[in-house]
Amino acid sequence: MPSSDGTTHDLADRLHSAAIHLLRRLRREDDASGLPAPQLSALSVIVFAGPITLGALAHAEQVRPPTITRLVDRLEAAGLVNRVPDPVDRRIARVAATPKGVKLLHDGRRRRVASLAVSLRELPEKDRFALAKALPILEKVVRAN
Amino acid sequence: MPSSDGTTHDLADRLHSAAIHLLRRLRREDDASGLPAPQLSALSVIVFAGPITLGALAHAEQVRPPTITRLVDRLEAAGLVNRVPDPVDRRIARVAATPKGVKLLHDGRRRRVASLAVSLRELPEKDRFALAKALPILEKVVRAN
Repeated sequence: MPSSDGTTHDLADRLHSAAIHLLRRLRREDDASGLPAPQLSALSVIVFAGPITLGALAHAEQVRPPTITRLVDRLEAAGLVNRVPDPVDRRIARVAATPKGVKLLHDGRRRRVASLAVSLRELPEKDRFALAKALPILEKVVRAN
Repeated sequence: MPSSDGTTHDLADRLHSAAIHLLRRLRREDDASGLPAPQLSALSVIVFAGPITLGALAHAEQVRPPTITRLVDRLEAAGLVNRVPDPVDRRIARVAATPKGVKLLHDGRRRRVASLAVSLRELPEKDRFALAKALPILEKVVRAN
């Protein structure tokens, strides 16, 4: 039963694995974007949290400063992001997504969600219902610290 | 109702987001490993799919060959992986995890799962039950193509 500690640990382990494998599967849709995964991941943070400093971006992506500089250089060369001055302290550079960057990210997200929706439509309705019932709980867990 | 197409699309969208945010939250536990996220991700593939060729690893990580070479160099310098000859064609190099690499990955996984289990234990039992009921369905979706 899910109330015992052992089973809660097992539930956590399987949920963690399922999230990893779900995203690995959906990431295949990203090939169409033509961007390597680290650039796409950084672009995602820039779109949702930008304009962002290089330091904050490196922290979010858990990479070292030289790596984030290289990633941003490539995204900038592809016309997907721009370096913009901080409105308060002009010595601080921030990175913002261009309309092209926003579109590339949203197109990619649309492909992933469409692919997942196809799989969900193949489920028996009772399974889709069980997923829909569990989703708000999962969202609550994600928000928790 | 989750049977309509619009709602299935919404379910897919929210499930995709929840998986991303769950992993972003659990990834914070990885700071204790001292490894940047791209190295940890590559190490994970090497542990679970290795000995693996650099090409297959680059494909799995969706990065370019120079990036994977750099990542593997760093993992090798840290004593976490070794380059080993292919048993059939010795011109092909494969990458395998060392016992130290396996341990680092498993320790990290244990920290993530323990953190998630703490959150799950805080849920009302009926919520944990709903998650446990949805999990095999999610696992089925993940395995589907």
